[in-house]
Amino acid sequence: MKAVGVVVEYNPFHNGHAFHLEETRKKSQADVVIAVMSGQFLQRGEPALLPKWVRAQMAVLAGVDLVIELPYQFATQKADTFAFGAISLLGAIGCDSVCFGSESGKIDDFWATLDFLESNKQEYDHKIKFHIDQGVSYPTALSRAFLELQPPESIVDLSKPNNILGFQYVKAIKDLNLDMEALTVSRTNANYHDEDFTSATIASATSIRKAMFAQSGTLEEIEPYVPKTTATLLHEYSRNYHQFHQWENYWTYLRFRILQASTEELKNIYEVDEGLENRVITAALEANSFYDFMTRMKTKRYTWTKLQRMCTHILTNTSTAEMRQRMSNPSYIRLLAMNDTGRLYLNKWKGQVPLPLVSKLSSFQQDDITLDVRASRIYALGASKEMQQALLEMEYKQPPIYITR
Amino acid sequence: MKAVGVVVEYNPFHNGHAFHLEETRKKSQADVVIAVMSGQFLQRGEPALLPKWVRAQMAVLAGVDLVIELPYQFATQKADTFAFGAISLLGAIGCDSVCFGSESGKIDDFWATLDFLESNKQEYDHKIKFHIDQGVSYPTALSRAFLELQPPESIVDLSKPNNILGFQYVKAIKDLNLDMEALTVSRTNANYHDEDFTSATIASATSIRKAMFAQSGTLEEIEPYVPKTTATLLHEYSRNYHQFHQWENYWTYLRFRILQASTEELKNIYEVDEGLENRVITAALEANSFYDFMTRMKTKRYTWTKLQRMCTHILTNTSTAEMRQRMSNPSYIRLLAMNDTGRLYLNKWKGQVPLPLVSKLSSFQQDDITLDVRASRIYALGASKEMQQALLEMEYKQPPIYITR
Repeated sequence: MKAVGVVVEYNPFHNGHAFHLEETRKKSQADVVIAVMSGQFLQRGEPALLPKWVRAQMAVLAGVDLVIELPYQFATQKADTFAFGAISLLGAIGCDSVCFGSESGKIDDFWATLDFLESNKQEYDHKIKFHIDQGVSYPTALSRAFLELQPPESIVDLSKPNNILGFQYVKAIKDLNLDMEALTVSRTNANYHDEDFTSATIASATSIRKAMFAQSGTLEEIEPYVPKTTATLLHEYSRNYHQFHQWENYWTYLRFRILQASTEELKNIYEVDEGLENRVITAALEANSFYDFMTRMKTKRYTWTKLQRMCTHILTNTSTAEMRQRMSNPSYIRLLAMNDTGRLYLNKWKGQVPLPLVSKLSSFQQDDITLDVRASRIYALGASKEMQQALLEMEYKQPPIYITR
Repeated sequence: MKAVGVVVEYNPFHNGHAFHLEETRKKSQADVVIAVMSGQFLQRGEPALLPKWVRAQMAVLAGVDLVIELPYQFATQKADTFAFGAISLLGAIGCDSVCFGSESGKIDDFWATLDFLESNKQEYDHKIKFHIDQGVSYPTALSRAFLELQPPESIVDLSKPNNILGFQYVKAIKDLNLDMEALTVSRTNANYHDEDFTSATIASATSIRKAMFAQSGTLEEIEPYVPKTTATLLHEYSRNYHQFHQWENYWTYLRFRILQASTEELKNIYEVDEGLENRVITAALEANSFYDFMTRMKTKRYTWTKLQRMCTHILTNTSTAEMRQRMSNPSYIRLLAMNDTGRLYLNKWKGQVPLPLVSKLSSFQQDDITLDVRASRIYALGASKEMQQALLEMEYKQPPIYITR
């Protein structure tokens, strides 16, 4: 069985994702589509709208055959570590190819970009360092350094978010020396960060979430942009759990933790860079919402995303030491959801997967998975009071969701 | 000016306290009454009903001349450390006597008890250790060991809560070698732990709080048992802050912290004794209220009070190292409230007080006071959402409350 991998967050699954899946099947000619999906906290350093179990279910109902979890130590990181973790896991589970969406849409250009940057590595690194020392953010430094190298025309524009991720996937394949083909699908109808609806059926997840959280927003409003299965699960979750998850649900916890922690403890948290611990405390003493807090924290030096990731790590109490220890190599594969094809694939190939497959937490007692467990515990506390217990228990008791056609 | 000290919590100030103050003035013949009062968290390991500022105001309005704060490192402790801190501070501020309420009511008996226990110290300590090893709680072990020594008739019954405290005050005077007279007033109308109203005007603070938090409870119900000034301040706080403080207000924070902390971090918290860290985590995963959590934690080995103190330290993130460093000697005197007499006394004697007098936090930058500041920060988060900011700022900006007649 030929397998293709996709790297996803599905926050939530929408028509653009469905389009990407169709194209992925076509381009790869694979028998099985495997998604490696971020867990409870996402790459932009925010809680997922819905728990990983519900998003995994959305994925399988919309055509993914098997969903595995991208562990916390990769999911909440910059593009390079995020891609490294995702591609490692897709490699471990036997994917012959990976297919990603990009603004570029041309796979050869990604390889050319990789070659170009590797042959100009010293100068590139030097320029990045120069710009960071000037006080700009890491992404800005990357982008400026890249342009100053005067890349040829055939090179991917690394100022676009999906191109950046795609570039890192390709780089990870090379670095890991994997026998995996890279494929890309052009993203046309919606830009990653679009906040408004610009097409009749395709909208970015950002604009969908914005509509969902708007004061006047209703779930009906987003129905044109998501598959029926997504809409049903959104309605169901909203009915049972009364609210979706967003940073503001966790603001009181974050503030409490910042105000009770010692500066020593804050300094030990991943992404709390030198000196940030004092700004964090001052902002927490003064802010009355997460948004207010972030606005007080924001400077030219730090992107909103970097600061949100830092907040995620403070919230989940994740230290630099814990991250470093776990981010060099994935050491388990947690199964979240599958259909018949996914199950068949697993049964056939699981003997050859070099990592333990985790079906149920209670029968996998390894310290490595601590960060995912803690993330799920904390994530559960952002649910409405009556539903926290159910969400907490899910992390321990939920077996992979199996959807038979 | 002759000064008498009282050790108080005033949670809230009631008629029994007023009676105690009158008797204190009579017995001591002092010109000024100084109260050393617990701050935001109390000896039984719970948040005070009202912030220290409001309780200090109640005290002065009801006849205390000067209120100073008993720091966190003494206020949230067993009788011995609590008494040591309180008597040290009353000594430092120049009290000629201390007057406490007790079930015994006979001061000579306290000195006799001290003599008796000191001359039987070895046997007493041996018996205490024996009972603790049998798995009973510390107070039970104390009480059993005491009875087994077959104390003579004239000896204070150390199974009564106020006798225990009184005994420790007398002991602290001796240990500190202070030139301070001990006086005691008999508590007659209400027992410390009484939960119901048993007299027309005197009720325990426990029964008053119980009535205030009862579902059907109204503030009017407790008016017969408190001075008019207390009633007014309770009404005012309830109007401005919408709620009084109790453990359930802090339950979500406590649970969050337990679920995000590593077992290493929990073990470092003061009062989290060997092995308790795992029970704490299990109980936090399962409980849906503070009361539920406590019920799951309770065993014969640990009293409710000991466990509540442990919870307080987890909530305020207070480590064993931080407590040990600060509980050997008070190093500052924080002024909370005073009237003209209190101010006159301070002006006259402050040159002779061997400790810094703290009027405003912003002009006292010593690390020693950290625990009080953190306690106030966390305490503020138990207020209604709109009022947290005001309470937070109070800790930094509020000068001692001055009430002129």
